[in-house]
Formats: sequence, C-alpha cells, structure tokens
Amino acid sequence: MKINGNYLNLEESYLFSTDARKVKEYQEKHPDAQIIRLGIGDVTKPLCPEVVDALVDASKEMGCENSFRGYGPEQGYDFLKEAIKKHYEENKVYLDADEIFISDGAKSDLGNILDIFCTENTVLIPDPVYPVYVDTNIMDGRKILYMDANEKNAFLPLPDYTVDADIIYLCSPNNPTGAVCDRNQLKEWVNYAKSKNALILFDAAYEAFIDNENCPKSIFEIEGAKECAIEFCSLSKTAGFTGTRCGYTVVPKALVFENTSLNKLWLRRQTTKFNGVSYIIQKGAAAVFSEEGQKQIKENIDYYKGNAKIISETLTELGIWHIGGKDSPYIWMKCPNNTDSWTYFDYLLENYNIVGTPGSGFGKNGEGYFRLTAFGSRENTLQARKRLLEGIK
Amino acid sequence: MKINGNYLNLEESYLFSTDARKVKEYQEKHPDAQIIRLGIGDVTKPLCPEVVDALVDASKEMGCENSFRGYGPEQGYDFLKEAIKKHYEENKVYLDADEIFISDGAKSDLGNILDIFCTENTVLIPDPVYPVYVDTNIMDGRKILYMDANEKNAFLPLPDYTVDADIIYLCSPNNPTGAVCDRNQLKEWVNYAKSKNALILFDAAYEAFIDNENCPKSIFEIEGAKECAIEFCSLSKTAGFTGTRCGYTVVPKALVFENTSLNKLWLRRQTTKFNGVSYIIQKGAAAVFSEEGQKQIKENIDYYKGNAKIISETLTELGIWHIGGKDSPYIWMKCPNNTDSWTYFDYLLENYNIVGTPGSGFGKNGEGYFRLTAFGSRENTLQARKRLLEGIK
Repeated sequence: MKINGNYLNLEESYLFSTDARKVKEYQEKHPDAQIIRLGIGDVTKPLCPEVVDALVDASKEMGCENSFRGYGPEQGYDFLKEAIKKHYEENKVYLDADEIFISDGAKSDLGNILDIFCTENTVLIPDPVYPVYVDTNIMDGRKILYMDANEKNAFLPLPDYTVDADIIYLCSPNNPTGAVCDRNQLKEWVNYAKSKNALILFDAAYEAFIDNENCPKSIFEIEGAKECAIEFCSLSKTAGFTGTRCGYTVVPKALVFENTSLNKLWLRRQTTKFNGVSYIIQKGAAAVFSEEGQKQIKENIDYYKGNAKIISETLTELGIWHIGGKDSPYIWMKCPNNTDSWTYFDYLLENYNIVGTPGSGFGKNGEGYFRLTAFGSRENTLQARKRLLEGIK
Repeated sequence: MKINGNYLNLEESYLFSTDARKVKEYQEKHPDAQIIRLGIGDVTKPLCPEVVDALVDASKEMGCENSFRGYGPEQGYDFLKEAIKKHYEENKVYLDADEIFISDGAKSDLGNILDIFCTENTVLIPDPVYPVYVDTNIMDGRKILYMDANEKNAFLPLPDYTVDADIIYLCSPNNPTGAVCDRNQLKEWVNYAKSKNALILFDAAYEAFIDNENCPKSIFEIEGAKECAIEFCSLSKTAGFTGTRCGYTVVPKALVFENTSLNKLWLRRQTTKFNGVSYIIQKGAAAVFSEEGQKQIKENIDYYKGNAKIISETLTELGIWHIGGKDSPYIWMKCPNNTDSWTYFDYLLENYNIVGTPGSGFGKNGEGYFRLTAFGSRENTLQARKRLLEGIK
C-alpha cells in the first residue's frame, strides 16, 4: 500500500504550539503575571439564548417516537437552506435553495471542495493567508502561485493578468490581516477569473463583521460572480459556533466548467462522502436567522467590534501602522522598529504581558507583522490598551 | 479550471429513487393499500433518554459564559475517546486514546480516509457491497478489483492469494447481506493483508448487533490486525444516531507504510480539513457509553434483533434461502423461483404490499437477491410475517 506522498511535502506549523510554549514558560517564571491574550482566534461569548432554546428543543424532539429524525438530506434540511436563502436576499443576492449546501464548517468544505477539481490546476493564493488554503492544495499536489499582499496594496492584492491561474482564493474580511475587499476590487477579481476561465473560492467566514456598505458581504453581490465563484460561509464567528459546528457553501448552478455543473459534482461528492449535519445543530443554526436570533448575535458581534475599535484606536494613538479592526475582528499591525514577528512577540509578552500572533506564521509576507484579535473580553481589551499606552505590564 | 474527470466515470444509482417511485405509483393506484416498508435502512427508534439528557445539558452549557466551549480538538474530546477506549477494552482490545478519532459518521471517514493513500493503489471490494466503497475510489481513479460474494461462500469471500491488492474493504456484519465474519475468517484476511503489505479498511458500523462470541466485534480482536487495519465505527445503528451524526475511526500507531505512520497522516488530514464534531453531539455520544446508556441502547438493539428473528423465521418456514438476521439487522434472501431482484420487488409490492430493496442495487452478484431490514416496528414486522405466511396483503 502506497501513501499519498504529497503529504510528505507539508511543512509542520509550529505557530500556535511555539506561541503556547513561550507563554507557558513565561508564566512559570512569572507566576504573578496577569497575561492578556489578544491572539485568540476563537470566540469567547456563549451561544445566544434563541440558539440554545432551539438546540434543547431539537434534542428533546430526537427522544420522542413521533418527532425523531433519522438520516436527513446530505445537503441540509430545507428549513435551514430557506433561512439562509432569505438572509442572502437581504443583500439582494437571489439563490435557489439547492445552490446552498449545509456543512459542519467552512474549514471542512474549503478542504473537501478540492475533491471535485483536477489536481493539475494551478492555484493562486494570497500571502499572508489562512494556512489551510495552502496545505489542502499541497496534499493534492497542485501547483501553487502566491500573490503578494503587502503594505503597498494594503494587503489586498489585485489581479495580475500576466499570471495564469485556475483556482483563486480570496478571503474577505481577511484572516489574518482584517483587510476587506470593496465592490470595485471584487469586480476586478470576477473579471480576471472570467477572462482566465478560472474559479474563485471566496471565504466569507467573517462577513457578519462588515458594516461598510461599499464592502460586499457576499461575492454574489458582484454581477457575473455566479459564473465564476463558490462562497464558503460559517456560523463560527457569526454566531459563536466554533464548537457547535455549522456552516454553508454556495455553489451556483451557473458554474459550468468543461460542460459540467459544479453544483452537480459537489452534490455527488457530498451525497457520497458526507451524511449531513446533525438535525439538532441545524435547528440551532436556523435559530440564528430568526428575527430574535439576528438581534442576539448582533449584540455579540458589536461587542467584539467594540474591542476591535479599542485596539485600533490604541495603535493609532501610538502611531503604529495597522489595518483591519473595522468590519473585521482582526487587527494586523506592523511590528514597531522593524523588528521581526517573533522578536515583537517576546517583547510584547515580556514588557506588557500581552500575547498576540506573529504574522510570519501566515506566510513570508507576514514577517514583521503581528495579528491581534477582538475576541477577548472588554475588560482585558481595555486593560491591554492601558498597558500599551502607559508602557506598563 | 479543469474538473476532476474521474467523477464522470461514476454511475448514477437509481436504486432508492426507483424504489420510491414504484411505491408511490402503487400507492396512488391503490390508495387503501397498507404498505409495509421492510426496506428501511434507517433506524426508527428515538434516541435513548440518557443521550437526550446529555444533549440538553450540553446545549445549555454552550449558552453560559463559564461553560461555553469554542474550538475543540479536531480528533475529538478526551472524555469521548476515553469512553470508547474503555468500550473496546470490554472485548480485550487495548488502544491508546490518540488512536481513536471522533467523526461525524463512518460514511465521512470511509470517504475521507482515501485522501492519505496514493491513487495508484489497487482496491479489492466484495460484490455485493455498500456502494460508497466503490464510488469513493472511482472519484480518485483507483483501480478496483471485485471479489465474488455468493451463495457458495455464504456471501463471505475469503482471500485469493493470486490477487494482488493494496487496500481491502471488509464490512462485518455486512451491509447488505447481514453475513458476519468469524474469528478464523478475519484471521485469514489479516494474514493475506500482511503478506501483500496491504491495508484493510474494516467497516464495523453494525458491530453492536453481534452476540455470537465467535464473531469479533472489532478486527483488532485478531492478532496482528493493528499492523494492517483501520476500523470505522458509528453510533448510527448502535444508538440511533443516523440523524445525530457521530462515529469514530481507529487508526493504530502500529500502522506504518513506506516508513510513514498512518496515524500521523490521518491526524494531519483531520486537523487540516476538519474542525471536529460538535461538543454537544460528543456529549450525547459519550452518554451512549455510560452504564445506563448501554442498557438503554441495548433495549433498542434487542427490539430490532427481535424483528430480524421474526423475518428470518418466516423465511425459513417458507423455505426461502437467506442469510443474516442473526447478529445483524439485515436479512439477505434469494428471490424465490429464480426471479430477478426487481421482478421480485414488484411481486412483493403487488401481492403482499411489502417493500424491500432489490439486491441488484448492490452489485452484479446481488442480482436475484433481496434485502429486508429489521428497522421497522414490531407491529409491521409481525403483520408482514402474517401476510407472507398466509399469502395475503
């Protein structure tokens, strides 16, 4: 039996393990230090009451003979797909319910979607980037091209027509940079993709943080995108579902490559290799889209956005170059004094007892940058501000 | 952008859609007919109270600031892995917790595991078989060899050393035939796999139905299996989780091919393309393994097994050749009078108002056979018995 040798080309990531080790060592040496974690990529607010009620009710339904549910449709229940369809209509995106596939999260679908594409495609990925885009393509042995995201383009690279790519990854609001594409930038990408007969994989996991009307929450707000893009969305950051697990992927029926409908291919993939998301979880997810659910999740998002604003204002007051923190839970800052990412990590930990994430962990263009997040508590975020402004720990 | 052309080699399955259409048409023509479905592949009993309580409690935990859980380990929570580890120990199988990976069901993992194997491997699959084994390998373009399961070998083919295979699928208790491998048969397969440097993918989704002590519930009860087998298990049929979604896959650390640990490869696959099963669902799954949970699920399994026994005895009384129905929820019968599977389907529907599943839908060797299942109600199963014995509808 031969293994998939492409796996041997994967690089181990030591980003979060090194991060954790350094913090642990510091804490052991300084047991009284009150370390503030501003590097958290996970939500901290609990599920909202509307969602919990729906989860409890659905759990009880599963215990009764006449309301028990066995196998559901692999692509998700209609009640949830219809709720998501209506949610898209608020932004004037009109989908058919069978263009929406319910998943256990954007990460799964971003990986699994590659099953339906030839391994000979060339992939175009921004640098820095969420490492999953790169690793999942290395696993399949695809050729990867990188586009430089940097200070000059505000970490939002635009198409270079001299580059030929088949599959293009875009993430907006971006992880790790917090940069958000505006309507014109997305239009340029749609035009490029169509001219190259390429496909855009659009990661919209952070769309719920967008308030700026000039920044689309969905790539399908752009004309022509249905012919060249798949969109991945998640309730993880939208509604605190990181541990509850539910997302959705939109594969428009207008997506046709080599005379083949990608919607049909993906349906075939999912009906063969997936058995759908738990009925209970789908009921919880549907509650997110109820009127009361939307109100409740908005409170949490506003809370996180309040934290982001505090961090961004603090950096502005300190004269530190940064982007994000607006329409996004992430703040991407330049390490002061041109230090490298890990040196700044140590500096911040030792002098301010604050922990963040070194930008170099997200690609070569991340070197010299640093990611802070808005997912901590308000108290800790304000305390971090105080320390940074007063130079104390 | 080029698609994965292997998908175009997939055959459409019309098994269950044709089945449903025929039943619908019959019911429309005969609105008073009381059709009994003995073809159900899904459980019908609700989740047991112990599991529902755990799901409700976990849902509530997720709504509280101090008990909320975000991202969990991709490979599953320790509390569930430890419970499964102990469950294996009851059959004297000793695993490390990190050899157990929690999944959203056996179907997902049976499909996704192929990611870590080279597409040049040759795959050996019994015929008839659960169609997912075949389709997932066609999607990757692997060469597939079939082994004949037939009346002569009681639908349990043994190794043929003249055949070279790299990956071998075994399913015991079998879907669709209900045949169960005994200890010696599994030993032969382990010996064959080791002699060929091959890997066995062992589907144990129906292990909870085994009472016969000579039939292992786990392939790891066989010496040497840890060096040549991965086992897939599911709570779908064990505890009625078909709509709740939780299973587990055991990848022993002793599995080394091309100097590479399959356990490490699978961990890398899962941490990259999966984000773990919902905390809530994992808590429900753990309740299955509690003392009270085991008692409660056993009641349901015994109920289904009671149905299986009734069906099997009825067929015996009618002098119809069949296997399964013992240590399995499936009964695999020969169509009387050498009719083909679909002709018998029509005959049974029209003359007895009973619906089953044509064996031909599971492979060429299924032609002339028919699958009945034990997942209906006791009342319907007894009514079906009466009809079959009395020749009425």
